[in-house]
Amino acid sequence: MPQLRLDISVSLDGYVAGPNRTVEAPLGEGGMQLHEWVFGLASWMESHGVEGKGATGPDDDLVREQLAQPGAVLMGRRMFSGGEGSWQDDPMAEGWWGDTPPFGMPVFVLTHHPRETLVLGGTSFIFVTDGVESAFEQARAAAGGKDVAVAGGASVVQQCLRAGLLDELQVHVAPVLLGDGVRLFDGGEQGKLEVLRVVDSPTVTHVKYRVVREA
Amino acid sequence: MPQLRLDISVSLDGYVAGPNRTVEAPLGEGGMQLHEWVFGLASWMESHGVEGKGATGPDDDLVREQLAQPGAVLMGRRMFSGGEGSWQDDPMAEGWWGDTPPFGMPVFVLTHHPRETLVLGGTSFIFVTDGVESAFEQARAAAGGKDVAVAGGASVVQQCLRAGLLDELQVHVAPVLLGDGVRLFDGGEQGKLEVLRVVDSPTVTHVKYRVVREA
Repeated sequence: MPQLRLDISVSLDGYVAGPNRTVEAPLGEGGMQLHEWVFGLASWMESHGVEGKGATGPDDDLVREQLAQPGAVLMGRRMFSGGEGSWQDDPMAEGWWGDTPPFGMPVFVLTHHPRETLVLGGTSFIFVTDGVESAFEQARAAAGGKDVAVAGGASVVQQCLRAGLLDELQVHVAPVLLGDGVRLFDGGEQGKLEVLRVVDSPTVTHVKYRVVREA
Repeated sequence: MPQLRLDISVSLDGYVAGPNRTVEAPLGEGGMQLHEWVFGLASWMESHGVEGKGATGPDDDLVREQLAQPGAVLMGRRMFSGGEGSWQDDPMAEGWWGDTPPFGMPVFVLTHHPRETLVLGGTSFIFVTDGVESAFEQARAAAGGKDVAVAGGASVVQQCLRAGLLDELQVHVAPVLLGDGVRLFDGGEQGKLEVLRVVDSPTVTHVKYRVVREA
């Protein structure tokens, strides 16, 4: 059965973004440090159109696995474009993923503001206004038997956890303390997990968990 | 040079204790789950007076290493006894470590309320009222060239981090989301870390970091 999986980079103190997020600095102050481990990898460069460059190894293998798994993506409005109000007022209404976003599959964006589907390259952004369960059902239907990936941000992750939708959760823990920002777990998410796998490198620790459902 | 080291068990969502701590349940609701990984280990049982029983393996090796390193311990008042007011009002003024606490070395307890040193078995509890830096200096002097271990709780850890005293930090991440309680990092601790080692088992992930000091 297809799974709902989360892969997310987080600081040791639990932040997925630093404080004072803006359209120019969507990850907030210091937030880019959470993703430094990924930028030099061959897999990441390929997914952004740069072939034959970058590092290989355990981190790269893991990103390849992560990119290959899903048939659809679920994300929050801020992760699509950074805005919070209506699309008419949003200078980033086309998102910040460029003309050829790296997804190449349907991406379901959870938002309060309806709009038409946006197709950019091989990626279609479908905007869902009736809640996380509906967005997940639509994503699962679109995934063609493959898994659905939750891309973030924190609010969507928390909604998935609270609704009991998440099957697997992989955190990429960056060796940094941000001290402030957006917490991955903001209180209220409860449950047992099972460690599935740990992969470590000098720059990041990847821990993959299964969410244990009560019988 | 002797180091100030922290070893602490934490939930994936960053709590070192659950909500609603009492003298009867000092780790709060659900907090015992953070320590389940340690109770069955041979090293832990030996340190509590039970010889020749318990599990061996990577988790056990790690606890042995952790027990062998320090020459003195630094802890907060709540970790000593759970109380917050004066010692006269505290039904747990002897602490909850029993007649033969498992330390067998000087333990410096950071508190607002002065009192005489308490000797129980091979452990002496020295109560320090003039702040974390003084407590650390006294502990280092007492450690005889060995390291000083910060035992917790969260408040003492945060004070050590903010004062730039901590050299190494090892988290034992339990596969559970508590959803509420006492956070290890409560905001305001900032800095870069370096991953020194990752040890994983089915029940816990141990990640050891060095605190990077700015040149």
